[in-house]
Amino acid sequence: MSYQPGYLLYGQSGGPTSVINASAFGAISEAFKHPDLIKGIYGAHYGIDGIINDDLRLLDKEKDASALELLKQTPGAAFGSTRHKLKEYSEDPIPYEKILETFKKHSITGFMYNGGNDSMDTCEKLSRFFLQADYPCSVIGIPKTIDNDLVATDHCPGYGSAAKYIANAFACLKKDAVSYAKGRINIVEIMGRDTGWLAASASLAGLSDAAPDLIYVPEIPFSITDFLEEIKAIYEAKGSAFAVVSEGIRDNEGKFIADQGSVDAFGHPQLGGVGAYLASILAQGGYKTRAIELSLVQRSASFLTSKTDTEEAVRAGEEAVRAILNHENGKMIAFVRASQENYSLQYKCFPLKDIAAKVKYLPRSFMSEKGNNVSADFLQYALPLIEGENSVSYVSGLIQSADFIKS
Amino acid sequence: MSYQPGYLLYGQSGGPTSVINASAFGAISEAFKHPDLIKGIYGAHYGIDGIINDDLRLLDKEKDASALELLKQTPGAAFGSTRHKLKEYSEDPIPYEKILETFKKHSITGFMYNGGNDSMDTCEKLSRFFLQADYPCSVIGIPKTIDNDLVATDHCPGYGSAAKYIANAFACLKKDAVSYAKGRINIVEIMGRDTGWLAASASLAGLSDAAPDLIYVPEIPFSITDFLEEIKAIYEAKGSAFAVVSEGIRDNEGKFIADQGSVDAFGHPQLGGVGAYLASILAQGGYKTRAIELSLVQRSASFLTSKTDTEEAVRAGEEAVRAILNHENGKMIAFVRASQENYSLQYKCFPLKDIAAKVKYLPRSFMSEKGNNVSADFLQYALPLIEGENSVSYVSGLIQSADFIKS
Repeated sequence: MSYQPGYLLYGQSGGPTSVINASAFGAISEAFKHPDLIKGIYGAHYGIDGIINDDLRLLDKEKDASALELLKQTPGAAFGSTRHKLKEYSEDPIPYEKILETFKKHSITGFMYNGGNDSMDTCEKLSRFFLQADYPCSVIGIPKTIDNDLVATDHCPGYGSAAKYIANAFACLKKDAVSYAKGRINIVEIMGRDTGWLAASASLAGLSDAAPDLIYVPEIPFSITDFLEEIKAIYEAKGSAFAVVSEGIRDNEGKFIADQGSVDAFGHPQLGGVGAYLASILAQGGYKTRAIELSLVQRSASFLTSKTDTEEAVRAGEEAVRAILNHENGKMIAFVRASQENYSLQYKCFPLKDIAAKVKYLPRSFMSEKGNNVSADFLQYALPLIEGENSVSYVSGLIQSADFIKS
Repeated sequence: MSYQPGYLLYGQSGGPTSVINASAFGAISEAFKHPDLIKGIYGAHYGIDGIINDDLRLLDKEKDASALELLKQTPGAAFGSTRHKLKEYSEDPIPYEKILETFKKHSITGFMYNGGNDSMDTCEKLSRFFLQADYPCSVIGIPKTIDNDLVATDHCPGYGSAAKYIANAFACLKKDAVSYAKGRINIVEIMGRDTGWLAASASLAGLSDAAPDLIYVPEIPFSITDFLEEIKAIYEAKGSAFAVVSEGIRDNEGKFIADQGSVDAFGHPQLGGVGAYLASILAQGGYKTRAIELSLVQRSASFLTSKTDTEEAVRAGEEAVRAILNHENGKMIAFVRASQENYSLQYKCFPLKDIAAKVKYLPRSFMSEKGNNVSADFLQYALPLIEGENSVSYVSGLIQSADFIKS
């Protein structure tokens, strides 16, 4: 389908990353560069919900200039996000019809949706729908997920910054904890329900001489017996121990370890996640233990992002606009690593139908033979992604940010 | 007691802050400026434990120069810390005798101990002991605590940076959470077992349009009934709600709320702190709730510190050396705020005996009338303390730091 000059629409979907708004900046600023081909660009409030409800915001190159610039350091989803997953048209046509109505009303001929697996699925469904409805609109996905689990792309915008925050926070935590001659067993729980990309990134703290002793990921079955043996041996030898666990680690039957701790023998719900559960087992054995969660700050710490990641996120937004102008449709912007030695990326369009609802797992070769730490291959893969620091703007000690929801 | 030219000794004690090593930098670099009066300066490994065991490290102006410079951004306690509290000499003279032996062996005539309440108590005891033993040594305390609960000083080095991290992390968390049209009840648990200084600092996120809705501190009795009523009302009105609770909030009989959730009716220990406990009550009532802990990163986030705090921490170390050279003894360096309007500090020496083992609580006037948020007075007090950002040095995306324990 060839692009018909009209308005573009940009929307955000799924869990925010600390650089999703950098992609918004890229898309919007690129759109402004082509006034001959693009009449204007809208942002949707709360993703497809805003499209269904005709809650869009037309962006203004001049009036919005300073807020747009702040997008590069704004946490959360500055336009609002949603977890709404579109069903197939045959199951529930109403949202599709409303979306079409909104698109027609505002002459939208190019749509960019910024999200992860589920959002790419929505993107793909909309692309098919517009073709069937014979409505001329190019649909392009902009990847975004701290989980780094989208297939067809070397990595996802958002991962590098989350990895950088995790590695630096872990380094600081460890240096704090080893301040005492006699330490504890520390268990740091990291996000990642299905994949271990984020937990693995804690290994990068080794660059600051503060590597975790052990790392456990969902891709490799977790044995509580083996874990206890491994962590106790390290604690006895060193006087302190540091394990990193993905929230989604599971046993060899695929059952989440966290769920095993969630209800006690009397059916009372237990509080806390898998880190707290493992810590409680060790504490019952008399070990001084501390469970630490890095919480939502992992994906929202705009005060410590990767310059590489931010620049790539901006570029992904820009490339989406260029892809639309190049008459691409039903594709996602994907990153291809040009070479392993000298890190550089190429940007390609990849069919959404081959991406949607698939998961990219941490390759087995990225973990050590024993499966309780990363391999050199992982470090080589991840290191370039956390490189470089952004200059962040503060007023009175507080990070400044843009808000395109309320304003 | 007049200062006798000899060697100085610097030690760290208690929980680290993200700027305790900045005070080490201040003390050591100031000592190097007076080669006529100071023969050299040692760092004690693991505080008084290192002194008792004669585990000191003589610092070298040239060889240690680059590591010393990195102290200003090094998390943890770079020389090692301890929780060892000295008993009175009459109860247990052995540690005192060993300390005296070490001091005599290395001709130490000036001792600086960098810590909080308990450490100032140790400092005071040692000062008295040296006088009684007729050993000529000046003892000066350098304040340090994220808890901000030392009396006689306007505030403590370490508090400003912890407050800055908390306020910015809270702002990012809140902006992430309000990305969805329909939100949750978020309960953010902040350190502070006895005082609410840290929890109150989350209010500074208001500077980034992300203030907490409610703040609860240990100084004001906490009623679960009132809390539930207050948070539910906000949630119903706004679609999301953000409460900040000190870990040490307690009921009107002084019992920790956290302890009320720590054992269930069958005596099974429950995991998690007070935030998780309150969240579980709301979850049982059908509310979508999330408990968030900022964990040890609050006191170790060297990647996000207050420039004001770092500079004051350096100055506190410098002032300790100057105090020794001015023949002060048995004193702590205290901050006096010169004026409220134009923030500036004066540095004074304050008798340790009037500080040790006392606690400075958050004044009632720093909280709102209802007691569930801060007042304008608190904001005016705290704002200058988080001002300014430090330029932090990274290599390959990881924060660099100095290590005077292993190296």
